[in-house]
Amino acid sequence: MPYERPNIHELHAYTPGEQPGAAERVIKLNTNENPYPPAPAVMEAIRSVSAERLRLYPPPAADAFRTAAARVHGLDPSQVIATNGGDELLRLVVTVFCEPRSGDGSAAGLGYAVPSYTLYETLAAIHNTQLVRIPLGEDFDLTVDFAAKLNEARCRLAMVVNPHAPSGRLESIDTLRAIAREFRGVLLIDQAYVDFAPRDAVELVREGSGLDNVLLLRSLSKGYSLAGLRFGYGLGSPGLIAALDKARDSYNTDVLSQAAATAAITHRDHAAESWKKVIAERGRLTDTLCGLGWNVLPSTSNFILAQPPVDAKALYQSLKQRGILVRYFDQDRLRDRLRITIGTPEQNDALLASVRELCPAQPSRT
Amino acid sequence: MPYERPNIHELHAYTPGEQPGAAERVIKLNTNENPYPPAPAVMEAIRSVSAERLRLYPPPAADAFRTAAARVHGLDPSQVIATNGGDELLRLVVTVFCEPRSGDGSAAGLGYAVPSYTLYETLAAIHNTQLVRIPLGEDFDLTVDFAAKLNEARCRLAMVVNPHAPSGRLESIDTLRAIAREFRGVLLIDQAYVDFAPRDAVELVREGSGLDNVLLLRSLSKGYSLAGLRFGYGLGSPGLIAALDKARDSYNTDVLSQAAATAAITHRDHAAESWKKVIAERGRLTDTLCGLGWNVLPSTSNFILAQPPVDAKALYQSLKQRGILVRYFDQDRLRDRLRITIGTPEQNDALLASVRELCPAQPSRT
Repeated sequence: MPYERPNIHELHAYTPGEQPGAAERVIKLNTNENPYPPAPAVMEAIRSVSAERLRLYPPPAADAFRTAAARVHGLDPSQVIATNGGDELLRLVVTVFCEPRSGDGSAAGLGYAVPSYTLYETLAAIHNTQLVRIPLGEDFDLTVDFAAKLNEARCRLAMVVNPHAPSGRLESIDTLRAIAREFRGVLLIDQAYVDFAPRDAVELVREGSGLDNVLLLRSLSKGYSLAGLRFGYGLGSPGLIAALDKARDSYNTDVLSQAAATAAITHRDHAAESWKKVIAERGRLTDTLCGLGWNVLPSTSNFILAQPPVDAKALYQSLKQRGILVRYFDQDRLRDRLRITIGTPEQNDALLASVRELCPAQPSRT
Repeated sequence: MPYERPNIHELHAYTPGEQPGAAERVIKLNTNENPYPPAPAVMEAIRSVSAERLRLYPPPAADAFRTAAARVHGLDPSQVIATNGGDELLRLVVTVFCEPRSGDGSAAGLGYAVPSYTLYETLAAIHNTQLVRIPLGEDFDLTVDFAAKLNEARCRLAMVVNPHAPSGRLESIDTLRAIAREFRGVLLIDQAYVDFAPRDAVELVREGSGLDNVLLLRSLSKGYSLAGLRFGYGLGSPGLIAALDKARDSYNTDVLSQAAATAAITHRDHAAESWKKVIAERGRLTDTLCGLGWNVLPSTSNFILAQPPVDAKALYQSLKQRGILVRYFDQDRLRDRLRITIGTPEQNDALLASVRELCPAQPSRT
């Protein structure tokens, strides 16, 4: 008998997108990194951390960062929790709000819309909580009965990624508010990609919103070009934040990442320049691929979900052979598509050149 | 009704030792930091991480670090897991090996010897697993029936901190081996302080040891002067490591800490110089306090557990007023003692000067 719990023994670990070694020269459009570097102030903040500071424990709750983030979002620091990447916040909400299955197999668990970020399933499996999959509509939209289905399944937590991954669709604030009002558990809105979208949902957690069950996830990985740093944060009511705070590791973020993250969010204007450039290229890539006969969903994120006029998996492999990595998902509703991260103009040109060679232009489908 | 699970709602979060702000000038002997700075090579490694590298996701499993650590300990990289501080490894072992309580209240849970690191209790409470407290002997020793008691309580995991905190006592390898052989669950030996001790237990996880249920925890916080970095690691059989690996956050350590930790362990000789100095000062502080009528346990760690000839709590407070922080634990068996981190000779002199003023010398008790 293995030592680990049966649910862990049976678990298939989450598989992140390919991360080629430093020596490999590839055009990396597969894991939604920002193609532009972080702000110089971030690098200065890292380099100004002294040996003496590293010797000592970090501020346990990253208070300087929380204060800076609260200022940016018009909230109070008590409404902010800093985490070791957005992934830690996702694990924490499952830990804090979802009951593990008990003897009779039932438990108040996690509901989420499929398809979306498959890590949600892994986290539910690790915690051994009930997972409730609710299919998205035809346009990857949250269906009108989403909250009713969550309540019917007695979910204590729901995760909605908005802008949606991998489609790039953005739900309206009114839709999210209506779900939060109807749903009896905690609604985690995963805003990992929101910096590239026309609006965020922060008003749902502002004082006076009347909603005490909404948590927003934010990440510095994409918007602030800091995927290597592992820094994310949550925004919500002080009560929800305090509950999460009890369950995080005592010193969950380190002095280097606290310094870098505080500098990044304080110099938000630098990051915002990259958002503009990514949005412009997103439009160009979408239009060009549509002109080549692809079907591309309108995206509000830093990637597009694109249906090529040829076999998607074969095209993914052909691109990989040419040193261009995009993401292929072997999942229902996604097998005929590729998720392509928006790169620099030069990277996108290289992608388009290969696409033109590998799948000759066809009349537009729309 | 609160949104969080009842066990989280009732939880008292772990309280780390005081971390005074940067502006406060204190002699900090309360949270077992190494008084000497990390190796220059660590600072160089941090400063050589480029903006381009931070933009991209880190190597998910910290392979360069695992290879370096395996070399240092004479193990295979498959026997190493890198974690966001030793605390993450402690959380992971609870998650992976302990069942949460089910409806009937029983579950195969976590056993540990009291008193020791109180975070173990917090982790059990967060996971809502059964906690079995087994009292240590008179000299803070593991009693001969320790493994039998773990088996009787059906523990799936046991945590032993060795060198012991807060006493500094070191168990023999034979004692640990005997426990591992008899115990039917996983034995986590928390070696956070082992760099200051005369021996470690790595032979228990070497190939051919016949023990597949031993995990060793190591931390860079104390031995390598990197408490601010949050980097620890586990050593064990490939099977145990693989199980833990499935449950960790996908990118649990970042590029900066991976670079710094790899440099630190590669330049182990630099850290070893600090260990020698700490050990020498440990001897001097122990002898001097004993000469002043204190009762001090022989320690193999970078702290001592010392019983003053006056009220310990009042002395803790008097020292704090003078800007000297030591640790007082309001716990059974510890209320008449102080845990004092070994500082630099100058810091220890300042402590001794204040001690001489606050509690006049008494005839030695021994």
